[in-house]
Amino acid sequence: MNTPVIRVGIIGAGFVGSSLVELLLDPTRHAALLDAATGPLELVGVAVRDGSKLRSGIPADLLITDAAALAARDDLDILVELAGGIEPARCYIETALRRGVSVVTANKALMAECGTALAQLAHDHGADLFYEAAVGGGIPILRALRSSLAGERINRVMGIVNGTTNYILSKMTSDASDYGDALAEAQALGYAEADPSADVEAYDAAAKVQILSSLAFGTELRGEEISREGITRVRSIDVEFARRAGYVIKLLGVAERVGESGISRRVHPAMIPEDHPLASVHGAMNAVFVEGAKSGPLMWLGQGAGGVPTATAVLGDVLDAARNRVSGRHDVPFSVDTTLHSVPAGDLSSAFYLSIDVLDQPGVLASVAGVFGSHGVSIQSMEQSGVADEARLSFLTHLAKTSDVEATVGDLAKLDSVDSIGACIRVIDGGGE
Amino acid sequence: MNTPVIRVGIIGAGFVGSSLVELLLDPTRHAALLDAATGPLELVGVAVRDGSKLRSGIPADLLITDAAALAARDDLDILVELAGGIEPARCYIETALRRGVSVVTANKALMAECGTALAQLAHDHGADLFYEAAVGGGIPILRALRSSLAGERINRVMGIVNGTTNYILSKMTSDASDYGDALAEAQALGYAEADPSADVEAYDAAAKVQILSSLAFGTELRGEEISREGITRVRSIDVEFARRAGYVIKLLGVAERVGESGISRRVHPAMIPEDHPLASVHGAMNAVFVEGAKSGPLMWLGQGAGGVPTATAVLGDVLDAARNRVSGRHDVPFSVDTTLHSVPAGDLSSAFYLSIDVLDQPGVLASVAGVFGSHGVSIQSMEQSGVADEARLSFLTHLAKTSDVEATVGDLAKLDSVDSIGACIRVIDGGGE
Repeated sequence: MNTPVIRVGIIGAGFVGSSLVELLLDPTRHAALLDAATGPLELVGVAVRDGSKLRSGIPADLLITDAAALAARDDLDILVELAGGIEPARCYIETALRRGVSVVTANKALMAECGTALAQLAHDHGADLFYEAAVGGGIPILRALRSSLAGERINRVMGIVNGTTNYILSKMTSDASDYGDALAEAQALGYAEADPSADVEAYDAAAKVQILSSLAFGTELRGEEISREGITRVRSIDVEFARRAGYVIKLLGVAERVGESGISRRVHPAMIPEDHPLASVHGAMNAVFVEGAKSGPLMWLGQGAGGVPTATAVLGDVLDAARNRVSGRHDVPFSVDTTLHSVPAGDLSSAFYLSIDVLDQPGVLASVAGVFGSHGVSIQSMEQSGVADEARLSFLTHLAKTSDVEATVGDLAKLDSVDSIGACIRVIDGGGE
Repeated sequence: MNTPVIRVGIIGAGFVGSSLVELLLDPTRHAALLDAATGPLELVGVAVRDGSKLRSGIPADLLITDAAALAARDDLDILVELAGGIEPARCYIETALRRGVSVVTANKALMAECGTALAQLAHDHGADLFYEAAVGGGIPILRALRSSLAGERINRVMGIVNGTTNYILSKMTSDASDYGDALAEAQALGYAEADPSADVEAYDAAAKVQILSSLAFGTELRGEEISREGITRVRSIDVEFARRAGYVIKLLGVAERVGESGISRRVHPAMIPEDHPLASVHGAMNAVFVEGAKSGPLMWLGQGAGGVPTATAVLGDVLDAARNRVSGRHDVPFSVDTTLHSVPAGDLSSAFYLSIDVLDQPGVLASVAGVFGSHGVSIQSMEQSGVADEARLSFLTHLAKTSDVEATVGDLAKLDSVDSIGACIRVIDGGGE
């Protein structure tokens, strides 16, 4: 078969970008690509911010500093955007799509911000926009939602989609470390940034949940805020309580149908039964658990980050785009369902775990229990631990409306006998089988 | 977009076939299919063995009894073969492929028997041959190996690919049932056949391992025998020993590279660390764990059987074949690597668990240990349990060559002091992260 050369440009040469260049220039790998009938891929340029920096593995004649010019090249077939951030990445991508150049990106923040508009732009100009690496690193979950599960009615998607927080929570579980120590270790190992807030405050996971939801349900990607709670208030005592009760604590991103036309999207810590498949996702691994009406539960697990796994996901997208290019097609963008409405997290019900540091004095349990009762939150079990300054009450509630639990926490904080209130953690039921 | 009608015929109307008919005739689902730009699908006939049997959900005018005629129809685009068995299924499929009709099948036995030849026949006549449902029911694992992981160098594939045996082993683990009771319960629930040998003797899993290996490594599908050991010799005492040591026992199908050009394919019970993702695969669920050089470990989990999940996998293949039909293409068949050679299971090394019923008399441990020593199998730990008639020795070995362990078992059986020898179970190392 005599197929035309597909010309690829890359913006960004960090871990993922340089791994991708290696994969593209690897001669044994290239043979495999040809095998897959995509035709030869030619790397025409790699745009970097600092052209003076030496980069091993990237031929000097491919390095350029003018990313905008690369995006606007006449002879480009596929632009790979790995710079990250909203601007100027959006500008480069729009430039390429407007010229009918297909785009592959790993930019979850940008996709969550304006993915629907970009997908429409791609479609209008006969180009592809693929972003497999934006969720779950090397796990081919977006492709599965796009193709294998196309036509399936999905009811719920639950994901452990942030490796940094999963590493920290796994450490807290396996070593009984507290949050600060586990975070410091994650930073020392390069799993967490010096400023970890994008991870531990769940901004990263929230963007990924929006992307999963758009493919699973057809919700729009236009920069909406979704309910988001990180792991900074999870304590080692909570992890230990969960373990004794047969649960593990994970930061869970959830997108699910509520009634006929409601969709709830949220990120929060959750207690998961220890025999649930998601409970076995350790360290920096990621996993996405999908509940479909026909296919039953399905789970994808793999490395959620790392230059090489993520670069293989990007390469998969490049190959798909190249195949489409050769056959003169482009993929239909995910369909948007405008009849859907967003359900506030406060409207949903769940069982909750809650731990409260109290002053060890007579009557404190009565006043705390009174606050639960005044909001109609029914207590399933209570445990008191520690004495004096260290006294703590741990509660498991029956099914309760989230807004009622939030109101309970608000009123508890006003009690003189309450010192501080820990994480408010939803308890997830089974569903592994 | 004005796309031609794609005409589909189905052979077989069991659980999977009738679920597929429902999916194809469901009007809301049909809209989703059109959305996916495949064009309209028209069901032209469903061939059944017994035409007099009433079948709910299948319009009477679609039912026919002449499967051969359906396979040879001039106006067919896609033939779905769900009859199972080698003949006459092979004959129907060859008839269709020779006429350029694409084929979708769930027939693992037939694919293991002659998949390479059938794939070549499809390619020669410009048709597709898809068989996603042959492995892992509703889990889109074959598509992932074909597309997402194309070009990746895979080192090992390990799967829990038989739901019946996983149900039995899960029951033995959760309820401490013995093998016979767990099997009887599986039969009562319809998870196991009256004659369970295809499942419990691992014929079913062996066929699936061959299919996984062909896609992961390029080994041929031409009816080779591979090393196969079922679960009939696993006892509740083994399951309990594993639990105390931090393991669970699973029936594992393995295909892996050995050195530069060797491939080992085998099915056997194995002790898996309880924190390994495969250990969390309960009941009738299936999972496939793939270790790639670049992508790192990846796992797919889902329902391995059941009419509706399997039918969704078949439908996914039908949609892929339809899309190719509309665009006048067909997929390139998996490439065969003729430089590979099969490595006998006996040549590989592993740690082993072995339990031996012995006569409780002086000197028995010395003579048993002597047999291990004579074959160079080094003992890592030993545990004696029971007394008199019930005395049992449980051993964990260090890394040992499988053929040496087999020779040890052979010689142990000759000892007067040995009553019987239980399952010989490989111990798998970690790898979840």
